[in-house]
Amino acid sequence: MSVWAGIVGEFFGTALLVLFGGGVCAALALNKSKAKGAGWVAIAFGWGFGVLAGAYMAFPLSGGHINPAVTVGLAFATGDFSKIPTYIPAQVLGAMLGAFLVWLTYLCQFRESPGPFLSIFSTEPEVRRSGLNLVTEIIATFALVFVIVITGAYRELQASGTGVLIVALLVVGIGLSLGGPTGYAINPARDLGPRIVHQLLPIAGKQTSDWAYSWVPVVGPLLGGAIGGLLGGTVVSLL
Amino acid sequence: MSVWAGIVGEFFGTALLVLFGGGVCAALALNKSKAKGAGWVAIAFGWGFGVLAGAYMAFPLSGGHINPAVTVGLAFATGDFSKIPTYIPAQVLGAMLGAFLVWLTYLCQFRESPGPFLSIFSTEPEVRRSGLNLVTEIIATFALVFVIVITGAYRELQASGTGVLIVALLVVGIGLSLGGPTGYAINPARDLGPRIVHQLLPIAGKQTSDWAYSWVPVVGPLLGGAIGGLLGGTVVSLL
Amino acid sequence: MSVWAGIVGEFFGTALLVLFGGGVCAALALNKSKAKGAGWVAIAFGWGFGVLAGAYMAFPLSGGHINPAVTVGLAFATGDFSKIPTYIPAQVLGAMLGAFLVWLTYLCQFRESPGPFLSIFSTEPEVRRSGLNLVTEIIATFALVFVIVITGAYRELQASGTGVLIVALLVVGIGLSLGGPTGYAINPARDLGPRIVHQLLPIAGKQTSDWAYSWVPVVGPLLGGAIGGLLGGTVVSLL
Amino acid sequence: MSVWAGIVGEFFGTALLVLFGGGVCAALALNKSKAKGAGWVAIAFGWGFGVLAGAYMAFPLSGGHINPAVTVGLAFATGDFSKIPTYIPAQVLGAMLGAFLVWLTYLCQFRESPGPFLSIFSTEPEVRRSGLNLVTEIIATFALVFVIVITGAYRELQASGTGVLIVALLVVGIGLSLGGPTGYAINPARDLGPRIVHQLLPIAGKQTSDWAYSWVPVVGPLLGGAIGGLLGGTVVSLL
Repeated sequence: MSVWAGIVGEFFGTALLVLFGGGVCAALALNKSKAKGAGWVAIAFGWGFGVLAGAYMAFPLSGGHINPAVTVGLAFATGDFSKIPTYIPAQVLGAMLGAFLVWLTYLCQFRESPGPFLSIFSTEPEVRRSGLNLVTEIIATFALVFVIVITGAYRELQASGTGVLIVALLVVGIGLSLGGPTGYAINPARDLGPRIVHQLLPIAGKQTSDWAYSWVPVVGPLLGGAIGGLLGGTVVSLL
Repeated sequence: MSVWAGIVGEFFGTALLVLFGGGVCAALALNKSKAKGAGWVAIAFGWGFGVLAGAYMAFPLSGGHINPAVTVGLAFATGDFSKIPTYIPAQVLGAMLGAFLVWLTYLCQFRESPGPFLSIFSTEPEVRRSGLNLVTEIIATFALVFVIVITGAYRELQASGTGVLIVALLVVGIGLSLGGPTGYAINPARDLGPRIVHQLLPIAGKQTSDWAYSWVPVVGPLLGGAIGGLLGGTVVSLL
Repeated sequence: MSVWAGIVGEFFGTALLVLFGGGVCAALALNKSKAKGAGWVAIAFGWGFGVLAGAYMAFPLSGGHINPAVTVGLAFATGDFSKIPTYIPAQVLGAMLGAFLVWLTYLCQFRESPGPFLSIFSTEPEVRRSGLNLVTEIIATFALVFVIVITGAYRELQASGTGVLIVALLVVGIGLSLGGPTGYAINPARDLGPRIVHQLLPIAGKQTSDWAYSWVPVVGPLLGGAIGGLLGGTVVSLL
Repeated sequence: MSVWAGIVGEFFGTALLVLFGGGVCAALALNKSKAKGAGWVAIAFGWGFGVLAGAYMAFPLSGGHINPAVTVGLAFATGDFSKIPTYIPAQVLGAMLGAFLVWLTYLCQFRESPGPFLSIFSTEPEVRRSGLNLVTEIIATFALVFVIVITGAYRELQASGTGVLIVALLVVGIGLSLGGPTGYAINPARDLGPRIVHQLLPIAGKQTSDWAYSWVPVVGPLLGGAIGGLLGGTVVSLL
């Protein structure tokens, strides 16, 4: 894979992830949307199928990480840190594109709704306790990266596609099971990129972009990914 | 594949898609239906599993496009426009058959319901702003066709079936995430064919077939498919 | 495959199908059940995953029909009617075992509920119009068998399991989309076997087994399966 | 596979299972959780995707049993009982780790909720009748193990991953269809390990760990697994 294929894959893959994920948040939260009030099951499947779209598209180009925590976790598992400098900026920029497209897709609905709108872009904890919120994000991201590293999903799935399907359903499961406290960022790009876009977009009724909390969904997933990569890599050595 | 196999595959495949998709709309909207009020998650899975039925059936015959936006997108990606003149008429006629079968399946329920019934046949926007509705349809269809073109889902799935499954779940995701504003036609045949049938059928309580809006779910998906095909084809050239 | 393997596969496979399918009906309808009122989406997935359980188990033994309409449809498609005399009795007896196990699993709940209970065992139409109910069952079963015959799902799935997964999700889709009017028997054994068990079991509060309607969910699916087999076989000849 | 690979796989695999499964119970039951009240469909998919996570991760290491009933069932089916002494303790300890991580993930939510909390850790029947509760657990676990033994899911899935996906969806189906009466332990480790953790953790508002019932979700699944293994092994001999 060339460097450019990797960048293009991560950019568009993360854009698709956030387009679907932010989209389902908009679909359920905004007025004049056919999906308004569809419930948490819809949120979990919407984000999971965003992973399906993004990772399936990106896989042949970049391996389909679409998440800095996965990139970091695989780096710690393999000792090869060379993808970090290109992949992570591509992921954050892609997430920004995705968030912008969500706004464009739901522009009529934004205009019909009073706000605030931050939850359509970025995560917010139900109970604001940075330390415990961080623990929640670490555990949820660990679960994702630990499974990916051990199963080598990202190596085998090009042939059959089953690996990316399982990882997507895994993310549905993380949403259902571990998303209750913080809204499961489990992906720094998915949270940071849209938060920047929320800051920049001229949305009537927009309130704070809550930068005070913004480090938690970045640091937590990176730590969880690193731990998942290290422990997963150790387990793989048993095989 | 012979020309006739392609026509037959697209005709019956699109008929199955609309039978399932229109069916779930009828199941949730009409009186005296066991699924009445089952919610947006049911809509999204119903249409997605309609793609599963139609594309899985049609794949060995025609490649399983069952959507003019996919046919156009693949044409732009590959430079081969030869399937358009046979596939698109077969898709529209198949969608008409599917819509007729929905009416037949739910005939008792149509008689027990006051109407209007157009939403069982064709899409209607929540906020009527043609330009923005068009943008929504372009983005949602782009997401579908861009992924299909890059992954080559439609080439590999005969062997394992996994590709068609992933595309079907992708359509579930588009419904959950991007369907809120316009009801996600993302397929000109799926919208135009049933609208014609709605115009023709003698349903008590029927109101307008809303031809004023009918160009949006045709033009939007065709544009989104063309853009997805062009950009997807460019990305594929990086591989 | 020996004759006995076929009988054993169809017997236990259909028993599993009805255990899951009747089970989800009991889970949602009876008092003192944790799933009470979970909604139509649960019904559709419960029956679909019953197909997954039964067909996945039975596939290596019998091909995993677990439905007389599939057996008849494949017979019409291939011209080989030899499996009908052994498979269909095994399917009906298996469905009876499944219905009995549902009753055993939910015995406490049956005792806490006032009845009637027939809908846990067999299908009942929302609007009683035998002719139109028959049409609904024919169309829904046609959709199932037509797809199975063309894709040859039942030939390829032993290797990868993907075929049985797709057929199971197809049945979820039929439930969501076409189940509203009659509760989608689409399988004579699934309806007749449990109806016999409902007649025989000593359940307090039990009412009529509704034999007047019982021919519809037998004849409809058999006709739909035969048409699906004939038309599907014709389409296959184009390949 | 080395002995240590087996132990590590079962330990972490069962931990993931219970992290997801207990997590979804916490997500729906506790105050200040975004998923509060999401319903039984969420419970069933949450536990099923916990199986997906745990079994997919553990498969290359241990075969991915993550359930003593599966280990016992496969032992009865094959006559090889050698894995029981190492796998079952690893499963119980892993389940304890998983339950502890659920508590950590939802610590803020536990503090905001009045309790009782046992249902987040272990199963409780809706109607307390030990004999009938046992029958329910036997039937539900039989369905799981019987299918696994016959399909050899646990042998083939490393190559394609489809087997573990089907088993995960089978567990979703068991939850939807057979979980109503007792909350479907179908896994002694999943119930016993978290019950011990519930006993030990200092949770404000905690009530009884209900040891009087605790033998049912241990003995029932072991009996169901043994019967499933014996009958499944007999059926396999027909192949």
